[in-house]
Amino acid sequence: MNAPIEQIAANRSFGGWHKRFRHHSTVLGCDMVFAVYLPPQAEDGPVPVLYWLSGLTCSDENFMQKAGAQRVAAELGIAIVAPDTSPRGADVPGAPDGAWDVGHGAGFYVNATREPYDRHYRMYDYAVDELPALIEANFPVTDRRSIAGHSMGGHGALICTLKNPGRYRSVSAFSPISNPVDCPWGHKAFSLYLGDDREQWKAWDSCELIGTATERLPILVDQGEADGFLDEQLKPDALRRACAAAGHPLTLRLQPGYDHSYYFIASFIEDHLRHHAAALGN
Amino acid sequence: MNAPIEQIAANRSFGGWHKRFRHHSTVLGCDMVFAVYLPPQAEDGPVPVLYWLSGLTCSDENFMQKAGAQRVAAELGIAIVAPDTSPRGADVPGAPDGAWDVGHGAGFYVNATREPYDRHYRMYDYAVDELPALIEANFPVTDRRSIAGHSMGGHGALICTLKNPGRYRSVSAFSPISNPVDCPWGHKAFSLYLGDDREQWKAWDSCELIGTATERLPILVDQGEADGFLDEQLKPDALRRACAAAGHPLTLRLQPGYDHSYYFIASFIEDHLRHHAAALGN
Repeated sequence: MNAPIEQIAANRSFGGWHKRFRHHSTVLGCDMVFAVYLPPQAEDGPVPVLYWLSGLTCSDENFMQKAGAQRVAAELGIAIVAPDTSPRGADVPGAPDGAWDVGHGAGFYVNATREPYDRHYRMYDYAVDELPALIEANFPVTDRRSIAGHSMGGHGALICTLKNPGRYRSVSAFSPISNPVDCPWGHKAFSLYLGDDREQWKAWDSCELIGTATERLPILVDQGEADGFLDEQLKPDALRRACAAAGHPLTLRLQPGYDHSYYFIASFIEDHLRHHAAALGN
Repeated sequence: MNAPIEQIAANRSFGGWHKRFRHHSTVLGCDMVFAVYLPPQAEDGPVPVLYWLSGLTCSDENFMQKAGAQRVAAELGIAIVAPDTSPRGADVPGAPDGAWDVGHGAGFYVNATREPYDRHYRMYDYAVDELPALIEANFPVTDRRSIAGHSMGGHGALICTLKNPGRYRSVSAFSPISNPVDCPWGHKAFSLYLGDDREQWKAWDSCELIGTATERLPILVDQGEADGFLDEQLKPDALRRACAAAGHPLTLRLQPGYDHSYYFIASFIEDHLRHHAAALGN
């Protein structure tokens, strides 16, 4: 049975509802907040769901407030679910050095194996299993799922599909951390959450997973060319090479002048939603 | 001559640019930040401008991040300018009681006459004169102007047009404080900024100004019926009565289920932008 969920906010939006809920996550061992956008079509019957995984420092609110996705989701009849980006709370260990790129707001969508993070930092299991089960038990949605995300969440969306053939109908990402085993953000987070054995890291790296993937779900990626993190952290060329080597379908769009912000995401979110709607059967 | 302006941020957005600038305001006696959205059409020649006045506690960022206006502005070829909502800084007196509904973030778009607020709190002159002069001197825009706003900024947009016949091509508001001389927010702010003589307040009240307006610019208002501030603070019925008595054209749309948030604004901003574009000649 699912634990109870508590509604903490509701805003009418494009004829549907944006709502926020708090629940106790068994997987994460703490209370969590997530947001749901239910399009108007959800009043007449179940709709498919796009899961959105946000980037470093974000909560459930950034995407819902800034991406402008509700307009298109309301047209297409797609629900959107936005989880938080890490376990939270006074009992959940944060960054050892107070940094913003590990700890609270920076769960990296992995299952931590190193103490003390292994107790709470299991965002992969939360995003792939616990949250969808909760959503499908409590909301008027089908089990048709797609997934997308930004930066750390783009990495999350890619590994969730690559590790779970058949679970998602489509995947897309904005500015994903494509190759975390080979960038500073990934090194820092994976050392903390997974320990020093770099072989273990490869199970959480899109470029590594693409080679052995048993499902070739087409990947849509938008990447701003003026993104300050592009070369050092995001490495779209590594993703391109991995997809080419494996024969994995990739549409990588480099967008001139665009940066890493939600102004970039808002500019192209409609294309992503239509990409997902086509796969979800709308 | 205009004082220099300093660019502090730039984000590509829907083929155009969102930019933020800092400048010294002579009128307000402090440094101010404002945001501009320049649509792609501004690269080929001057475009008209919509001024957006935000509500209590907001800065230039709320509208630009949350309203989803850039998509439509880019289609219609309209620039959008969003000023801050009050003078700011350590030298600018704030709320006597630390409140959020007067002082910093709560200038109410009046020219204060009472000490110590009369030195800095002149947001009316800033919004109507100083900022447009700066914009028209520094950006590829025409002198065709429209104005819109939310809550305190809806009040601001209405009084700016009513007090300046011929200056704006069109006006609209979301959830405006329609009758500040007769609501708690207005009483508190006008007492502080204008003093105790309530006759003086009437020069800053839309319902009072409508009776003697010499230009009958049609007013478009959207108001959420689930807005928690509706009856006590916003009073759309007072606006309806004032317009009816004066024969002033008003389209007042009550939107069932919608609240006071940017989720509401985002849901209907496209209608407002098209209303303004029709008047601006796009």
